[in-house]
Amino acid sequence: MAGRVAVIGAGPCGLGMLRAFQQAQIKGADIPDIVCFEKQSDWGGLWNYTWRTGLDEHGEPVHCSMYRYLWSNGPKECLEFADYTFDQHFGKPIASFPPREVLFDYIIGRAKDGNVRRWIQFSTAVREVTYDDKSGKFTVIFERLTDRTQHTDTFDHVVVATGHFSVPNVPTFPGIETFPGRVLHAHDFRSANEFTGKNLLVVGASYSAEDIGLQCYKYGAKSVTMCWRTKAMGFKWPETMEERPLLTKIAGKTVHFKDGSTKDVDAIILCTGYQHHFPFLADELRLRTHNRLYPPDIYKGVFWIDNPKVMYLGMQDQFYTFNMFDAQAWYARDFIMGRIKLPAKAEMQKDIDAWVKREEGLETDDQKIDFQGDYVRDLCAVIDYPKIDLDLIDEEFKEWEHDKVDSIIGYRNKPFKSPCTGTMAPAHHTTWIEAMDDSMRAYLSDGKKAAAE
Amino acid sequence: MAGRVAVIGAGPCGLGMLRAFQQAQIKGADIPDIVCFEKQSDWGGLWNYTWRTGLDEHGEPVHCSMYRYLWSNGPKECLEFADYTFDQHFGKPIASFPPREVLFDYIIGRAKDGNVRRWIQFSTAVREVTYDDKSGKFTVIFERLTDRTQHTDTFDHVVVATGHFSVPNVPTFPGIETFPGRVLHAHDFRSANEFTGKNLLVVGASYSAEDIGLQCYKYGAKSVTMCWRTKAMGFKWPETMEERPLLTKIAGKTVHFKDGSTKDVDAIILCTGYQHHFPFLADELRLRTHNRLYPPDIYKGVFWIDNPKVMYLGMQDQFYTFNMFDAQAWYARDFIMGRIKLPAKAEMQKDIDAWVKREEGLETDDQKIDFQGDYVRDLCAVIDYPKIDLDLIDEEFKEWEHDKVDSIIGYRNKPFKSPCTGTMAPAHHTTWIEAMDDSMRAYLSDGKKAAAE
Repeated sequence: MAGRVAVIGAGPCGLGMLRAFQQAQIKGADIPDIVCFEKQSDWGGLWNYTWRTGLDEHGEPVHCSMYRYLWSNGPKECLEFADYTFDQHFGKPIASFPPREVLFDYIIGRAKDGNVRRWIQFSTAVREVTYDDKSGKFTVIFERLTDRTQHTDTFDHVVVATGHFSVPNVPTFPGIETFPGRVLHAHDFRSANEFTGKNLLVVGASYSAEDIGLQCYKYGAKSVTMCWRTKAMGFKWPETMEERPLLTKIAGKTVHFKDGSTKDVDAIILCTGYQHHFPFLADELRLRTHNRLYPPDIYKGVFWIDNPKVMYLGMQDQFYTFNMFDAQAWYARDFIMGRIKLPAKAEMQKDIDAWVKREEGLETDDQKIDFQGDYVRDLCAVIDYPKIDLDLIDEEFKEWEHDKVDSIIGYRNKPFKSPCTGTMAPAHHTTWIEAMDDSMRAYLSDGKKAAAE
Repeated sequence: MAGRVAVIGAGPCGLGMLRAFQQAQIKGADIPDIVCFEKQSDWGGLWNYTWRTGLDEHGEPVHCSMYRYLWSNGPKECLEFADYTFDQHFGKPIASFPPREVLFDYIIGRAKDGNVRRWIQFSTAVREVTYDDKSGKFTVIFERLTDRTQHTDTFDHVVVATGHFSVPNVPTFPGIETFPGRVLHAHDFRSANEFTGKNLLVVGASYSAEDIGLQCYKYGAKSVTMCWRTKAMGFKWPETMEERPLLTKIAGKTVHFKDGSTKDVDAIILCTGYQHHFPFLADELRLRTHNRLYPPDIYKGVFWIDNPKVMYLGMQDQFYTFNMFDAQAWYARDFIMGRIKLPAKAEMQKDIDAWVKREEGLETDDQKIDFQGDYVRDLCAVIDYPKIDLDLIDEEFKEWEHDKVDSIIGYRNKPFKSPCTGTMAPAHHTTWIEAMDDSMRAYLSDGKKAAAE
């Protein structure tokens, strides 16, 4: 098949895109030329852990926002690849909330299985993507970081798979510049050990605040004070954790909150979200959105309305993750390969508007889960992504949300059922709060050995 | 005068460039159109302190490498602007080793005096600079960070004044990924208070290691262990500071050194230098060098040999700073305005080669100081930068180097003489080791008030 596709990023989304092409190829299809640009020296995107923060060895912003001892905060069953199951990868059922290394192994297991590494240019940063109306082609300027040379190439399609949990949103607060301890964004959080014995302020009330707060509790922080701008998380926190309304100012090490209360803290972690950030894309190709379930301007959550030859993967706020990315990638592939025709712009806009309108009316988590489930259903209806029980996933997400309300410490101890194989996960050998070893070896062991070693 | 000049960066170098044009203008010269692009929201470059680390509020790499309680580590007299003296700015003689805020005030004092702010586009990041042989012009693609719009403009000359102490060089060491405390590069160091009571490892043996090590000592670190790759600094350190050969590995919190010794530490600060980093410049315009007194490929330390319409300011390793940047800026201005003609490429290359050859033979600090003094003399010989006593500066640098050997704690307490006005600085009211308040107010006071407050 003629044509060239640039895929930017080799994380779960980019690898899903490569997998989609590889799956078409093994079924005998003629696929386009593919070049996947990956800034990091290895694949896995966010899941490729590094101790580095700030700028990396090449002076590029560090992509990783993950930290040591990160365990999945949702059931693995809800993110299972329909075409490469957990049972297939691990050869046995495993528990439902694995640590990072286990999920990383699963992601790259599929990538290896599909031999997609041949398409990836590692340590290569995309600097500029422009579109030429006349030729109908994209020009991509990229830099090989290893020898610092710039290159230019042209493509017929561009898939943006660079994620949106890597560029921190960092507000400021009066007095923060003279706070005598460490101030960091969640993006730079690496190890809870650093905060053992400390009084911590965590600013934010979403997933990062919840999980980093709990992490620090688990690894011995003296106290964790979380504060919210819009709404408290409201979980049943352990005794040394609490929520307060947003801070108003900082004086020395004393933090003042909106309710007039104060607290002396040793460190401040800003769990204040991330930016959709595409400095390498020309203005007219660039998605502009905050983190939401249906960013406007991308048809089917993928195709840039002004130029659908630019596709975005995974730019939504997410309950669904890996298998939603896959559905998007399969859909994008079918468009690129001419199997799916997109409607006229006005009709695409109408479709977007309907989804956005529904999104704006959502109130409860259950409604949001159903919404995203329906979105994935809509994509899956017209692609050949293997069948997966989306109703079960919706149910499991809701169960998981309710589990968290019941016990924020205990929700990770529960097993879930696979929407792909029907396998019921075993219970893990150790409760999450007691499991201090987050290695894959320990996770996959029967627990007795691990304890004995 | 026809022509347009892009100046990238509004730190000491970029502001020096603007000053050079402003000084020509007030003398009646017709100057070109000038646009200065500054990524930060304010001027001063490195001297514009921020509490932020990693990425800034726009997702751009933070430029600042300075930290709280930073005091000049060389006599202010050696960096004095010939056209805007300390006496002129402060209205009275001040002591020789001021804290950051005082030097920042001095830098922007001159910028305000020259009304150069009119030329600066703040919060504007340059994304791509290319040169077109046919038109003989540069195309600059830049992004306004406040509204995230991209723009394009063309210029006849480009001055690169983005500094080379902002993009960290970050090596890795076995075991660093599981070290249980904070690991940071000097670039991200902000406040020594964070390390009070801690055992610190400082990796490196240059200015950052020396000053950050001392800072942490001054603000109560329990111990500071510094380690070197090539050569120890060899100063007379206080009792809780020491130097060892480079670390070989880290196991838990235990650091192993080349001499077989070990030390348990709580945090690791990598003072391992910076990269010359110009991702926004097209390959064929890009200086490639490590930090050295005479980077090859730039004639007179300024003009890009392959295309002298690209000029670099301040890319040298530095004894001389502000007034050397000025000499370069004045020289660049005179080339841009046609007052200085550059010789043919072969002759420029010969000149570069001679300087590089001399540089490569330098052994002692005294020789290096004389070398850089001669370089500044060479520039000053043909420009109208006001006369400044370069012999005195060379002498004072040497005296300062010897003072450091005598007392690394005490060298900042000594007054020096101005090479511009002849003014002898007063002694400061408080010794550096006892001066915990680094505010300009405290520095400029008589010390009694400050103590009483």
